[in-house]
Amino acid sequence: MTAASFDLWLIGIGTGSPAHVTGEGMQALRDAAVVLVPDKGAGKGDLAALRYHILKASGTQARVVTFDYPVRDPALPYPERVARWHDEIARRWQSALTGAGQAGPVALLVWGDPSLYDSTLRIARRLTPVPRLRVVPGITAIQALTAAHALTLNTLNGPVTITTGRRLRDHGWPEDAETLVVMLDGDCTFQTLPADTRIWWGAFLGMPEQILEHGRIGDVAQRIIQIRAETRARHGWIMDTYLLRAHTAES
Amino acid sequence: MTAASFDLWLIGIGTGSPAHVTGEGMQALRDAAVVLVPDKGAGKGDLAALRYHILKASGTQARVVTFDYPVRDPALPYPERVARWHDEIARRWQSALTGAGQAGPVALLVWGDPSLYDSTLRIARRLTPVPRLRVVPGITAIQALTAAHALTLNTLNGPVTITTGRRLRDHGWPEDAETLVVMLDGDCTFQTLPADTRIWWGAFLGMPEQILEHGRIGDVAQRIIQIRAETRARHGWIMDTYLLRAHTAES
Repeated sequence: MTAASFDLWLIGIGTGSPAHVTGEGMQALRDAAVVLVPDKGAGKGDLAALRYHILKASGTQARVVTFDYPVRDPALPYPERVARWHDEIARRWQSALTGAGQAGPVALLVWGDPSLYDSTLRIARRLTPVPRLRVVPGITAIQALTAAHALTLNTLNGPVTITTGRRLRDHGWPEDAETLVVMLDGDCTFQTLPADTRIWWGAFLGMPEQILEHGRIGDVAQRIIQIRAETRARHGWIMDTYLLRAHTAES
Repeated sequence: MTAASFDLWLIGIGTGSPAHVTGEGMQALRDAAVVLVPDKGAGKGDLAALRYHILKASGTQARVVTFDYPVRDPALPYPERVARWHDEIARRWQSALTGAGQAGPVALLVWGDPSLYDSTLRIARRLTPVPRLRVVPGITAIQALTAAHALTLNTLNGPVTITTGRRLRDHGWPEDAETLVVMLDGDCTFQTLPADTRIWWGAFLGMPEQILEHGRIGDVAQRIIQIRAETRARHGWIMDTYLLRAHTAES
């Protein structure tokens, strides 16, 4: 990579189905000169395969450049651990792109949508010089979840709160929330909620392995925990998301 | 329509760009036997044209059946006004589909995503018999907004609240909200917020006419109000959305 700025395109590719990619996403892959792809991490080989499947389906002629994800340092406190990890990823992108001699835009495939619980934008802004950014929206796990359950995200004129498992654990049910979507929860924090809270849960959304459950927390929490553990052991990884509604809200 | 149930597919088509449609959405349009399309309302002819553009681009051979949207009764209180309106739309769908003799799935094109501030699912469940529903997710105005601004929806591990202009006006800034996305706000309610609140605003997202503004409320609120009024007068309609962040949050 030279000292001149370059174009970096963050392309949302949806949550597991190649059919989630938009027309704009496919065209951007074809227009890119270089695609920056992580080497597959342990146990997530099917996700890596899906990236290559999408690249092939797009018909792109872009040069593929790979990088390895670093490991997070568990000894560091959370915000610093994440910041250092982002610094190191940026360093590896910079290194991977140096000498790639791209004569045009560099594309990154991003799970879901680059705006939602994804740090690609934060990492991209650590590059020097900061690239010219273009974001192509993609289907999020939240949308794949509501579509699979044929569920509306909001009640009529109702608000929606999106949060993380970590925040639900540390801060509890947010004041005034009626619909709560929880992402990145490896600890099944839903089991701590009142039994009459309703849950719509999904794992491997958009993929052939997709699993859905819904009901009252008191009725389905243990079943979800069990399914989650079994499926995770079998696949080596799991991605899941859920939507909660206070029992007082309309459904 | 016979007394037997039928398949109704709600296909999210994104916010104004035909390139927002996913591969799954295009395929669903090709697989449908009938497409149910509203006759264009006054002043929104370009949106109606976009639907037909997408249908043509998909290559579908489906039969197009149209219906007229009813008018809401302004004399009724809000929840009842909406409920009656949904009842009447369902009646018109039922009527339009009767005798359409569909030998297969009926598709409806839905702006954005069928889960987000859209009542197509609620109306569909009013049909008798209730159809077998399939939802195809689409790019929402929120995603088009964050993509256009190259902005993350959430801060690092931060929560996000999505609400309506009506709720912001009636209930104020939600307790504990850090990032607030406001939809369906015809009254520019953002102007009532503290001057150091940050706003990222967009109108006609995804369309060639797209307009973006961002800054501190104290600096840009009046400009947005003026642009909104001028553009609305010129087009005859406007669709806009905005994201707010408390001044204490990271950007």
